[in-house]
Amino acid sequence: MARLKTIEWTGKAVRLIDQTLLPGKLVYEDITNVKDMHHAIKVLKVRGAPAIGIAAAYGLYLAASDFPDDRTSSDFLAYIEKNERYLAGSRPTAVNLFWALNRVKNHAHILADSKTVPEIKVSMLEQAHAILAEDREMGKKIGEHGYELLKQHTNILTHCNAGGLATAEYGTALAPIYVGAESGTAFHVYADETRPLLQGARITAFELQHAGIAVTLLCDNSAAFLMKRGLIDAVVVGADRIAANGDTANKIGTYSVALAAKAHSIPFYVAAPSSTFDPAIASGEDIPIEERDAEEVTEGFGRRTAPQGIDVLNYAFDVTPHELIWGIITEKGALTAPLSESINTVRTS
Amino acid sequence: MARLKTIEWTGKAVRLIDQTLLPGKLVYEDITNVKDMHHAIKVLKVRGAPAIGIAAAYGLYLAASDFPDDRTSSDFLAYIEKNERYLAGSRPTAVNLFWALNRVKNHAHILADSKTVPEIKVSMLEQAHAILAEDREMGKKIGEHGYELLKQHTNILTHCNAGGLATAEYGTALAPIYVGAESGTAFHVYADETRPLLQGARITAFELQHAGIAVTLLCDNSAAFLMKRGLIDAVVVGADRIAANGDTANKIGTYSVALAAKAHSIPFYVAAPSSTFDPAIASGEDIPIEERDAEEVTEGFGRRTAPQGIDVLNYAFDVTPHELIWGIITEKGALTAPLSESINTVRTS
Repeated sequence: MARLKTIEWTGKAVRLIDQTLLPGKLVYEDITNVKDMHHAIKVLKVRGAPAIGIAAAYGLYLAASDFPDDRTSSDFLAYIEKNERYLAGSRPTAVNLFWALNRVKNHAHILADSKTVPEIKVSMLEQAHAILAEDREMGKKIGEHGYELLKQHTNILTHCNAGGLATAEYGTALAPIYVGAESGTAFHVYADETRPLLQGARITAFELQHAGIAVTLLCDNSAAFLMKRGLIDAVVVGADRIAANGDTANKIGTYSVALAAKAHSIPFYVAAPSSTFDPAIASGEDIPIEERDAEEVTEGFGRRTAPQGIDVLNYAFDVTPHELIWGIITEKGALTAPLSESINTVRTS
Repeated sequence: MARLKTIEWTGKAVRLIDQTLLPGKLVYEDITNVKDMHHAIKVLKVRGAPAIGIAAAYGLYLAASDFPDDRTSSDFLAYIEKNERYLAGSRPTAVNLFWALNRVKNHAHILADSKTVPEIKVSMLEQAHAILAEDREMGKKIGEHGYELLKQHTNILTHCNAGGLATAEYGTALAPIYVGAESGTAFHVYADETRPLLQGARITAFELQHAGIAVTLLCDNSAAFLMKRGLIDAVVVGADRIAANGDTANKIGTYSVALAAKAHSIPFYVAAPSSTFDPAIASGEDIPIEERDAEEVTEGFGRRTAPQGIDVLNYAFDVTPHELIWGIITEKGALTAPLSESINTVRTS
């Protein structure tokens, strides 16, 4: 029983958990070339913005490692550009993917004048290692700050998966739980299954069970009643995007949990890297909400469970207004309510 | 496009919709003997308390119709008793089933001294017809009273299935929608899919679509966000049991919807026969909450979607406190808030 390593470097290959096989099977796959990495990202063997970024960084190194050492730096850079575009096409809307690829590529550009091709390759691998290490450290910091807020509680509800399997290891929302386990605090996690894609049932439940942390799975619609029955002490969720005023976009269903927490005076926390703040967005009203395919709702898991031709409204995200959020936990520390003031404090400090 | 007839008498047989095949196929089955009716109830071809009661009443008549006309009334009554017990065993916890069987059996007992076996048989069939007609009439009355409350609105959210397919025709929560359609009012229904058993996706969506009423399916966890976006004008749900103070037990998830409605100042109504009131229960605190099998949550979609051995909390029902309920619509009229007063008015009138 241990925290899962979502992605790691074996010395020769990138070792990934094939998340498409979860929760039925835990299979590690060693990836040794850029084509297989492109495929792994495309078919969601690796998922979660931070994990995708790390995978892509290693993917660009795997491409580089196949380039002949005796050719020129400028040929090498052209080859890297081509492979960057190739990897960027694996998940066209993943911002972390572009960011990580760009970072490794720019590093190669900077070294091209002063270093040989073999030296640049080594340095690119080090960049990939650094992205992974920084992500791991960021999760650990979020975990430590979050643990300070949560350690007085026992029963923690979460929604969707903002856990280790979306990142290098600790995750965001689940990081305080893992830090608690390291510190000898036994939290009990209640995991919303998270319709329609069941990330809570498939991934959160799996990674916590694997780490030996007590976890109970529930249907999203029962969370409010569990609160009424006194089974939930606090809520912690991740975030996809946080507006300048603290309004938070996260997986659909988060807002419903926040309303129920408010009705029962239960603390509701958001845990996310500080990079999740988008200062260009004033409030949640300005966050665009993706609508996804009806089939995710009507035939997501092997058989059709709704009539043919039925109209479906399938929002992927919702927005929780900052008034419902007791605190936002980042790697730099926890911003607590009133958020409009604490966010400004961080920005001006 | 029309309201579905859940159950009807063809002159020779009981015609049922096989609800186990919904929403994929609409298949009517003609049932001509008690054994097939026992099976139909047991395997949920017919479901919903009122519909089960009607089916059982006809089932007892089907048993009677096979009894030789030239034998004695006392032999006939013993045979009816035996078949009543047989049918009662098809769904051991269904109160309406016992009530309907008892009513038809008692009717036979009352007539046994004065009537011949063939005459008693005819009269038993009339009792089954009466149970169906009364249920249909009750649904229609609920629909008329509910329509008065809902007609000023357009977009109506419902949870689970308290529709025609649980009753003879109109249903309870959906009855105002059907009465509206008869009166030329085009409601748009938003149907929660209703995890874990998906009665909203499988049954509510199906029957409304079939009746030509605009219906949009959504995941339960998105209802609150739809309210925030202004898409929902009112909520109407059914009830399994109503305490003396108006606290209402209904399908898990109802409480969450009621909290969200309250947060957005959206009217929240319960529609149910007056027989749903249980005056022996003072408040919702005293209503026992059934917990059901984990597998409903972990393997409901045709394949397993959660890790083996995971702990699951699967409440079948929750309780919505009367403070969140704007009105309870019965066949006798609508009780409106404050419910503690309006319920007493009805009881003393």
